[in-house]
Amino acid sequence: MANRTAGDLADFLGCPLQGDRAVTLKGVASPEAAQADDLVYVDSRRHLERLVRSNARCVITSSDLAMSGKTMIVAAQPKLAFARAAAWLAPPFPIASGVHPTAVIAESAHLDRGTLVGPFAVIEEEVEIGEETQIGAFCFVGRGTRLGRACRLYPRVTLYAGVRMGSNVIVHSGAVLGCDGFGYVTDQGKHWKFPQAGTLEIADDVEIGANATIARGSLGITRLATQVKLDNLVHLAHNVQVGERTLVAAQTGIAGSSLIGSDVIIGGQVGIADHCQLEAGCIAGAQAGIPSGKIIRRGQTVWGTPARPVQRFKEQYGWFTRLPGLAERVRKLEEQTPEH
Amino acid sequence: MANRTAGDLADFLGCPLQGDRAVTLKGVASPEAAQADDLVYVDSRRHLERLVRSNARCVITSSDLAMSGKTMIVAAQPKLAFARAAAWLAPPFPIASGVHPTAVIAESAHLDRGTLVGPFAVIEEEVEIGEETQIGAFCFVGRGTRLGRACRLYPRVTLYAGVRMGSNVIVHSGAVLGCDGFGYVTDQGKHWKFPQAGTLEIADDVEIGANATIARGSLGITRLATQVKLDNLVHLAHNVQVGERTLVAAQTGIAGSSLIGSDVIIGGQVGIADHCQLEAGCIAGAQAGIPSGKIIRRGQTVWGTPARPVQRFKEQYGWFTRLPGLAERVRKLEEQTPEH
Amino acid sequence: MANRTAGDLADFLGCPLQGDRAVTLKGVASPEAAQADDLVYVDSRRHLERLVRSNARCVITSSDLAMSGKTMIVAAQPKLAFARAAAWLAPPFPIASGVHPTAVIAESAHLDRGTLVGPFAVIEEEVEIGEETQIGAFCFVGRGTRLGRACRLYPRVTLYAGVRMGSNVIVHSGAVLGCDGFGYVTDQGKHWKFPQAGTLEIADDVEIGANATIARGSLGITRLATQVKLDNLVHLAHNVQVGERTLVAAQTGIAGSSLIGSDVIIGGQVGIADHCQLEAGCIAGAQAGIPSGKIIRRGQTVWGTPARPVQRFKEQYGWFTRLPGLAERVRKLEEQTPEH
Repeated sequence: MANRTAGDLADFLGCPLQGDRAVTLKGVASPEAAQADDLVYVDSRRHLERLVRSNARCVITSSDLAMSGKTMIVAAQPKLAFARAAAWLAPPFPIASGVHPTAVIAESAHLDRGTLVGPFAVIEEEVEIGEETQIGAFCFVGRGTRLGRACRLYPRVTLYAGVRMGSNVIVHSGAVLGCDGFGYVTDQGKHWKFPQAGTLEIADDVEIGANATIARGSLGITRLATQVKLDNLVHLAHNVQVGERTLVAAQTGIAGSSLIGSDVIIGGQVGIADHCQLEAGCIAGAQAGIPSGKIIRRGQTVWGTPARPVQRFKEQYGWFTRLPGLAERVRKLEEQTPEH
Repeated sequence: MANRTAGDLADFLGCPLQGDRAVTLKGVASPEAAQADDLVYVDSRRHLERLVRSNARCVITSSDLAMSGKTMIVAAQPKLAFARAAAWLAPPFPIASGVHPTAVIAESAHLDRGTLVGPFAVIEEEVEIGEETQIGAFCFVGRGTRLGRACRLYPRVTLYAGVRMGSNVIVHSGAVLGCDGFGYVTDQGKHWKFPQAGTLEIADDVEIGANATIARGSLGITRLATQVKLDNLVHLAHNVQVGERTLVAAQTGIAGSSLIGSDVIIGGQVGIADHCQLEAGCIAGAQAGIPSGKIIRRGQTVWGTPARPVQRFKEQYGWFTRLPGLAERVRKLEEQTPEH
Repeated sequence: MANRTAGDLADFLGCPLQGDRAVTLKGVASPEAAQADDLVYVDSRRHLERLVRSNARCVITSSDLAMSGKTMIVAAQPKLAFARAAAWLAPPFPIASGVHPTAVIAESAHLDRGTLVGPFAVIEEEVEIGEETQIGAFCFVGRGTRLGRACRLYPRVTLYAGVRMGSNVIVHSGAVLGCDGFGYVTDQGKHWKFPQAGTLEIADDVEIGANATIARGSLGITRLATQVKLDNLVHLAHNVQVGERTLVAAQTGIAGSSLIGSDVIIGGQVGIADHCQLEAGCIAGAQAGIPSGKIIRRGQTVWGTPARPVQRFKEQYGWFTRLPGLAERVRKLEEQTPEH
């Protein structure tokens, strides 16, 4: 890419620049790791010291953190401006180049303009892939799957048959999307497999972490709305629905048919049992456990297992830690009470 | 497959039919998603409304849920009959067709009649694969592994050397079977790897979820009995043994040498430490934690960490939630007691 | 390998032998599974009975467990001597043989003497691989990655671009190393991806379990020191640092920027939130939850969620289990108190 300058970047961000517009920028870094042509950011006085020692010549910062000797791009939200700058300065490296000759692509598959396919990828019958979507090495795209445009599947993603995916979706290595849900009907010592004949729909701008697993619907549809972000090793069971912009941290599991609203934040290692409902804007703290069928109301923050409102958790838990003292007080009362 | 009719299905299930035997059936669906030739089921009055609006012409239901306008197959257990019907009407799509020319198969490997092997599969020396077993793309079948008949390995399953697998086993994408257990002997600041020279034996009719990991025995054998079903991201450590028909939900981990009996049900995210014993018919609730060496007696249901019988858990936990009130009562007693 | 004898082994270990130096040894096993030429060990009187019935002719044991009829190698620490013996007698089978012709290796990649590469491996531009390192089938080694000597990557390991790995590192199947961390800047209903432009450094003698995921630094570096051992399905987030010899059991997750000292032992399913510090020699019990920013002091053992010193946990938890009784005592006091 042609070298870009601090001036170009300020124009792109629509932010004022103080200093030398001609400073060239090649990437982004932390103040410590930065070379002269790396962009850095500082959004708190605490970190100013790190900036002083940095080799970086250009910094995004807020108006009250001005400092001499650096070219500054002044933003109301420096971290946000930095994230936008990073995407513009250093877009991710292509996952493949062209369509690799070793890829096995069914004749009936349709790859739109600019699709990239890495070595040994397998694309089955009737697949449709939108323009500029990138399919990494060892990806398996099952029969009848449809992907939108500009998706990025890192090496070794598996899509079972019939998955539908929007545009700008990022899937990290090892994720398995649309696998069978876990459902059996047991009769006389035999587990009969309940059909897992539904599908999985993933909307635009979703990101899915490494080695995450998402089951297809058993009869219905498992659904991720726009901008859902799942961290590594997350598990979503059949028929789960996750609303717009909801964030799910690593190793969390959501059991069958649970409905997660929009703008929900779910910490790491949370367990959500089947048929739960988390309404819009809820927060579930790390390792929380939400029992079967539970409804968490709009905007509530819950902690613990079984999960309860954080204030209640803290009050109860506070007493838990003081239980030895409470027990001692009861013992003293007993001593002072005649019948004892 | 030739079209099948409601009459054929009723005969297969051995269930009476009311309505038109000639209705054709192509697949299974939920009432909402069904087209005219999809089979649906209803097993509760609550869901009758969904049926009325459905396009499906044929429904499996119980005798007390009769309704006009649909062809009905009457079953004592509609959900069970539906599961059996689904397997008969819409068997899973083959994972591969023939033996793909890109597969790398050692000369000393033996593939029985009707084995299917997908693109880029690797089958090492001395492997034996039973008839009609299907090996998906990117599967790795290590040296000396033996698989029975009619197994289905979805794309991207890894079997380390020497795994032994029965018949009708289903393994989902990303599962790693027979990897090294986690064992070291530490001496003077060095962790020496303890040998992981045992093996893994999987009996018939087992199903293993996506991205699950099962370690081989360190010296002995890790063993899964008939009809064990493991959900996604489950971890079994070295020398674990799991009894017949036991179900293990997603993200549960079982540490070294623990013995799980038959017909046990283990919820999601349960942690079972090493050398535990869960006797036949136990239930461990989601997120339960079972400490090292613990024995859970036959048929017990346990919850919590450390796990205890569910009734005891509920009683203790009930008081936990009322701790602030209990503490207030103690405070009042103190007020009323002269010495305070 | 040429047959080795008990005498050779005693010499290698520097331990005295009692019995027949000429006994041949081919492998290691448990007493039950051993054939005549398998080495076994016994380190406790409890297990002597198992030895009596064993076919093994040679046993490593301690001086106080002498028994007739077997050739004995006497070691101060029999289990340690056995682990060392196993590595010497039965080193792991090579993961590949030569460089497989199907591997896709960039011209600019450099493979040192004796590197083995399995079928369908992909090695991208500017990769450097040290001598005698083994790369299994389906491994993906991203652009600019550097691996030291004698590493073993089992089939289907993914290294994102730029990972740096020392020597003698073992990585099991399905592990994803150097993937993007989970970071977004949210503004007006849009999650902007925070750059994940840092890297991952892994020192010598590290072992990483199957399907584990380790994120690269966002701007800085995620770092594993010498002899760190991670079990299956472990997740390390961006910028985590793990000190020398630290052991992390299965399904544990460590969130962004947490610092784990040396010689720490972390049980299974532990959750460590962001910006925590576990000082050298700490132990975190299985399923413990360590809240954001928490510091666990050198050598402390913690249990529970939120984690606290194990003695305190046990005392509090003891009272928790006796809560129904405590409540009953309060009720009796109330009865005996006039105002009630």
